[in-house]
Amino acid sequence: MSEAGRLTFGPDGLVPAVVQDADTGEVLILAYMNAEALRRTLETGLVTFWSRSRGQLWQKGETSGNTLALVSIAKNCEANSLLVKARPAGPACHTGHTSCYYRPLDPAADLDPAP
Amino acid sequence: MSEAGRLTFGPDGLVPAVVQDADTGEVLILAYMNAEALRRTLETGLVTFWSRSRGQLWQKGETSGNTLALVSIAKNCEANSLLVKARPAGPACHTGHTSCYYRPLDPAADLDPAP
Repeated sequence: MSEAGRLTFGPDGLVPAVVQDADTGEVLILAYMNAEALRRTLETGLVTFWSRSRGQLWQKGETSGNTLALVSIAKNCEANSLLVKARPAGPACHTGHTSCYYRPLDPAADLDPAP
Repeated sequence: MSEAGRLTFGPDGLVPAVVQDADTGEVLILAYMNAEALRRTLETGLVTFWSRSRGQLWQKGETSGNTLALVSIAKNCEANSLLVKARPAGPACHTGHTSCYYRPLDPAADLDPAP
C-alpha cells in the first residue's frame, strides 16, 4: 500500500519527534523539530528541537545537562513524524522524571467538560 | 518544577497520541485524538483516533481488523500529548509493517532543499 516518500514538515514547518530510550525502550518525550533542528541533531549527535513556546532552537539538556545522544532516526509511513532513538544523560523530563509520561490519564478530570 | 494539570487539546481540538506495544515496547504509530476519540478509546478498549485526512473518527483496525487493544494511557508533563500502551492484533501500519517507523531517515533526500 502507499507510503509517502520525502519527509514533510507541517504548515508550521514542524514535525513531531518521539524520543525513545535506545536501551530501555521507554518513551521519554514528544517534541517538535523544524528542518534546522533536525540538521543540528544530525550534525551534533545531540537531539535538538524547536521550542514552540520560546520560538527558538532548543538543544535538549543545554541548560540542565540532561542531553539526549542520538542513536537513530526513523520516519513513519506518511513521512510526517519521526521516531528518534537516543541515550539520555539524565532525566528527560524537566520535572526530574525519567520520562515526561509519568502520570496516568485521569479521565474524570481530563475529559470533564471545561468549567 | 512546574507541570500542567488537565489535558489540553490543541487549537485544532487534537492531541498527538503515541502508541507503544505494551509487551515489546516498540513504538507503533503516532496519530491524533480529539476528546471524542479519547472517550471512545476508554469506553470500547480499542484505540480510536481522529483522522485528519478523512475528518472523522477512526477506530484503528476497523477495516483491516488490526485493532489496538488499550492497556494504559499516560499524559506528559505539559498535558498536551498522550502515550498509549496497547496490544496490537496485527501489523499497526497500513503498509503491513509491525510499526509505521520501518524506514530510517535519509538525510540527503529528506533534508535536501525542495526541488
